[in-house]
Amino acid sequence: MAIGLRGPDCEVGIADVAVRIALDAMGTDRAPQSEVAGAIKALAELDADIEIVLVGDETLIRAEFEKYDRIPQRLRVLHAPDRVVASDPPASVIRRKPKSSIVMGLRLHQSGEVDAFVSAGSTGAVMATSLFTLRRLPGVDRPAVGTILPTSQDVCLLLDAGANVDCKPRHLVQFAQLGSVYAHDTMGRESPRVALLNIGMEPGKGDELTAETYRLLERQDSINFVGNVEGRHIIEGVCDVVVCDGFVGNVLLKFYESVSAFIIGLLKEQVGRLGDGVLDLENVFRVLDYAEYGGAPLLGVGGVSIICHGESTPKAIRNALAVAGRAVRSDMVKHAAEDISAAEESQ
Amino acid sequence: MAIGLRGPDCEVGIADVAVRIALDAMGTDRAPQSEVAGAIKALAELDADIEIVLVGDETLIRAEFEKYDRIPQRLRVLHAPDRVVASDPPASVIRRKPKSSIVMGLRLHQSGEVDAFVSAGSTGAVMATSLFTLRRLPGVDRPAVGTILPTSQDVCLLLDAGANVDCKPRHLVQFAQLGSVYAHDTMGRESPRVALLNIGMEPGKGDELTAETYRLLERQDSINFVGNVEGRHIIEGVCDVVVCDGFVGNVLLKFYESVSAFIIGLLKEQVGRLGDGVLDLENVFRVLDYAEYGGAPLLGVGGVSIICHGESTPKAIRNALAVAGRAVRSDMVKHAAEDISAAEESQ
Repeated sequence: MAIGLRGPDCEVGIADVAVRIALDAMGTDRAPQSEVAGAIKALAELDADIEIVLVGDETLIRAEFEKYDRIPQRLRVLHAPDRVVASDPPASVIRRKPKSSIVMGLRLHQSGEVDAFVSAGSTGAVMATSLFTLRRLPGVDRPAVGTILPTSQDVCLLLDAGANVDCKPRHLVQFAQLGSVYAHDTMGRESPRVALLNIGMEPGKGDELTAETYRLLERQDSINFVGNVEGRHIIEGVCDVVVCDGFVGNVLLKFYESVSAFIIGLLKEQVGRLGDGVLDLENVFRVLDYAEYGGAPLLGVGGVSIICHGESTPKAIRNALAVAGRAVRSDMVKHAAEDISAAEESQ
Repeated sequence: MAIGLRGPDCEVGIADVAVRIALDAMGTDRAPQSEVAGAIKALAELDADIEIVLVGDETLIRAEFEKYDRIPQRLRVLHAPDRVVASDPPASVIRRKPKSSIVMGLRLHQSGEVDAFVSAGSTGAVMATSLFTLRRLPGVDRPAVGTILPTSQDVCLLLDAGANVDCKPRHLVQFAQLGSVYAHDTMGRESPRVALLNIGMEPGKGDELTAETYRLLERQDSINFVGNVEGRHIIEGVCDVVVCDGFVGNVLLKFYESVSAFIIGLLKEQVGRLGDGVLDLENVFRVLDYAEYGGAPLLGVGGVSIICHGESTPKAIRNALAVAGRAVRSDMVKHAAEDISAAEESQ
């Protein structure tokens, strides 16, 4: 065993289990509290063959363990003494913080000791370190970040959510391929409907980027391309995957988060006047709750890397671990690699 | 008088009033019902020196008048027999439907018989015909559509909301100038805070367009440039004007409309279970209600042209007329022309 992994009470090796996930224990605003709680929740609720490695400050993690009667055997700890801070330039983390939870967790994945990595730490640092350790899949120009948006039907995957600005049509086509595989393998969509985010429905609408991307997507046999969608259609749930440039995706995602929070705030004011319990808004909040949807996958790299919100609750962490498990079990990375290389060959 | 304008009961000339507005009576989904009601509401509630010319199918308009006990003298009718339909290419309307409400209303403005034009008809047709009749202001490369977004503080103006895709930095700088003048003159902002929509706060962040636009905006003395904002900040009300490419603006605007509708729908379901009147959501809905904010101005043309939503209620029409009145009274077009030409000279 290359790296010593210690269980709650003793040093143990990683057992030969079906799905092994490294979880950055230092990512959330309340680290490692949310991470420990999320991991314990996941082990209690998800398949019994999942094993989780908490990577982070061992003293803090073990102090957190004290709150629990029993720590599952399938939860291990890997001590990572370095701490990534907001002022660390993302690309420098791998060099300057080699013993951080992000770098050590991804190194575990790189060496094959785990099958996936989940982190609520700095998005930039996780992305940059994932690219460095897991590498791009052959043929992928630019890995993309996918994000799950609630809709009136079912959730949909939007990508790129911010990894790439100034995209070319070729990049958007790859996002479509990567998103389609992800929606199939982890979201249970049989033949994912892939749409191009645009400012009009007709082919040829939009800016230079979307007009040309439309033409390319039409010719992609491996994708169930359903055409353009406008901003208003996303929420109607007319597609499973929405493809856009990372600039647009990032603006949209951040806007959505804030609009939901804004409207919920307006509501809570009203509800507050009535006192608790008069109106059950649980369902409304649940639909808008990012915690339900389990993190943003980095797609197009040679592994499973899931990025969570810094404000992630234990439930959000648990759900991100569940998504990571599904991605591993379905062989998503292999399918993505096959799709991309088949498309390369057909060109 | 070049064009015969008829009052409710007799033919009259346009009096020498302070603000004369042509209102397209055929634009909304319920035309001319919403337009007639909105105009009557405006005349009852707004300044006494406003005069409105309803432009549209005279028979339908007069049939609508029958519902009212009294039609104000300051409400006139101009018969426009042609009807613009969705399948009309916007740029062809001026040639192929010269006697439509859009063309005739804008011709009234062009000839100086009215000071402003308000329409809930086809956005593309209103824009194209406005450009043809009112012309671009000297120095303006691309007129932009502004749209008002509710925020947790006060409303803010976002532009461009869809008139221009594939913008250059120079265009975004002009949007900033036009938006700043509009916010000052019609929204009562003393020194409007102008922000650039981006995917990060620091200077130099973003794509090629925003990075370069940032540098140009910093050097614009006539604008109170407050830097980059992200999607999440819009709703926080940290600025009065948000500048972006028309692609991003259009996606965002349509998304916002649909998200609000979606969340309100979720809520109404919950409220419905309790029965009416248990929870006063009026305030929530009011904040999110586009009707409150009075239409989207086309900025950078030689006149006041306000575009309303096709679903506009009488209140929305009334508010658009109020905005048009403020734009006329404040001499917004003159100020915009001065600002643009001063910036041209300083370069």
